[in-house]
Amino acid sequence: MYVGIDVGGTAIKAGVVDEAGNIVARASVDSRPDSGDEMVRLMYVAMSRALGRAMLPRDRVTAVGVGSSGLCDNERGVVVYSPNIAYDNTRVREYFMERIDARIDVDNDANCAAVGEYIAFGENCGSFVFVTLGTGVGGGIIVNGRLLRGVNGGAGELGHTVLFPGGRLCGCGQRGCWEAYASVSGLIADAREKGGWFAGRPELNGRTPFEGAAEGVPEAVEVRDRWIRNVALGINNLVNIFQPDRLVIGGAVSREGETLLAPIRRFVSENAYTRGVPGIRQTEISAARLGNDAGIVGAAFLHKIK
Amino acid sequence: MYVGIDVGGTAIKAGVVDEAGNIVARASVDSRPDSGDEMVRLMYVAMSRALGRAMLPRDRVTAVGVGSSGLCDNERGVVVYSPNIAYDNTRVREYFMERIDARIDVDNDANCAAVGEYIAFGENCGSFVFVTLGTGVGGGIIVNGRLLRGVNGGAGELGHTVLFPGGRLCGCGQRGCWEAYASVSGLIADAREKGGWFAGRPELNGRTPFEGAAEGVPEAVEVRDRWIRNVALGINNLVNIFQPDRLVIGGAVSREGETLLAPIRRFVSENAYTRGVPGIRQTEISAARLGNDAGIVGAAFLHKIK
Repeated sequence: MYVGIDVGGTAIKAGVVDEAGNIVARASVDSRPDSGDEMVRLMYVAMSRALGRAMLPRDRVTAVGVGSSGLCDNERGVVVYSPNIAYDNTRVREYFMERIDARIDVDNDANCAAVGEYIAFGENCGSFVFVTLGTGVGGGIIVNGRLLRGVNGGAGELGHTVLFPGGRLCGCGQRGCWEAYASVSGLIADAREKGGWFAGRPELNGRTPFEGAAEGVPEAVEVRDRWIRNVALGINNLVNIFQPDRLVIGGAVSREGETLLAPIRRFVSENAYTRGVPGIRQTEISAARLGNDAGIVGAAFLHKIK
Repeated sequence: MYVGIDVGGTAIKAGVVDEAGNIVARASVDSRPDSGDEMVRLMYVAMSRALGRAMLPRDRVTAVGVGSSGLCDNERGVVVYSPNIAYDNTRVREYFMERIDARIDVDNDANCAAVGEYIAFGENCGSFVFVTLGTGVGGGIIVNGRLLRGVNGGAGELGHTVLFPGGRLCGCGQRGCWEAYASVSGLIADAREKGGWFAGRPELNGRTPFEGAAEGVPEAVEVRDRWIRNVALGINNLVNIFQPDRLVIGGAVSREGETLLAPIRRFVSENAYTRGVPGIRQTEISAARLGNDAGIVGAAFLHKIK
């Protein structure tokens, strides 16, 4: 059995995961983002609670994977740095290896979610791109069965490619990042800027424009469609760079299904560089299968990915 | 010994290449872009002439690589399609294997140039991104010793990522591609649009803005610096996606050296997502080493790349 641990700024979630990718037990503890060392201790607490709930002794666990926000170095088994958790080359592998006899992997949370979806889609891909649309836009890339980590573990920051130079200020400090437009936060900002029908909705969230558009509200249709187009522009760029076997779109908004996916597929089929070349395979664009569990499952399966 | 063949719309260039990557003999024949089958025959003619000049019998050649514009399928050894040569699943490997007992590889010309530079830089990279700035903007990506080809051989079209939505019409049919701004054609278009000092220069080419800027002409400084910034924006996006060990900039304009590279390095060091993270490696940004020979050398070394 494996354990996957998904570490965020507010909660640390652990799951006991079987060989088929099912989560058989879970536990969650609150984060302590002011201390990296304390976070590692809490990761271990979350794992222990999940194992307790599964009534599984530690010696039955062969692999533990940790997915954390921030920059990770899986060669050394440390979390190097995070903008929202006080890590400082925090030695996750060392802490776990002193307490459990299992393989320990440590990687970025978006990379873990990519691995989870890659496993869920049957992992028979030459290249696989995962994009998650949430508060931000994250990504993970798998090529020939290996995560694309780059020289420093920071590869796959797909949301921080500039698509509108000089545009909206992004949390990363650049202007015009894809994330500032294609995230759910970007969608909510679009809706607020639009006003009108949206102004009467103080509970405005990422579903509101989709709900309004489904009811035929013109402002909602406009905001939704422009946002989807901005998502599609970035997706098409990724297709032109990677021509992946499969590109998976995750995040809660991916539950909108074909309302979101059909226009993106159409945009790519009309704009990708390889459009119109007869008889060749094209990228399959799919909605994520695992939802919020992708991070736990992917972390648990990191040991299967080089 | 190896043979590398660089196939373009106007000329087919062949080189006999030794184990160290030196071109020991060359030959060139005119292209016949109206016929893919005729092109294959001419590739073979170019190779035979280069071998003749090297006084090398065919049975001393262990590998032949062909780099062509367009979409290639190295598994089948065919050129699938090109927008500027009348290929139609043209069987390059088959033609050569009937005539020479060597390994035959067929890949896209920008991929070959990437392989050439990868070899020239010592090929000890986890990930390597090559960008060539010429009439267009091409690219090739090597990850873990393998070319990133994608599901259909079309990966690496870095120039056809949109960076200015709704902007300049690109030859690919999209608006606002990076290529429409960061190519040398884009630089020349910028200079023509600027007019003034440039209007008195009917011989305007990609070097003109650099020459004018070196002489202190304000319009030339403005056009050069804005163009470099547009190049840097796209380079920084690639760094955020790949965080490659090394990113190499090719094309004739790369001979401008530090005038081009220093502002790009500065832009990336100020904007990359991993800027400011202490103690981590960052991407090395370099000018190409092989110039026009990268395509021949890279084609000759395709057999070393999976």
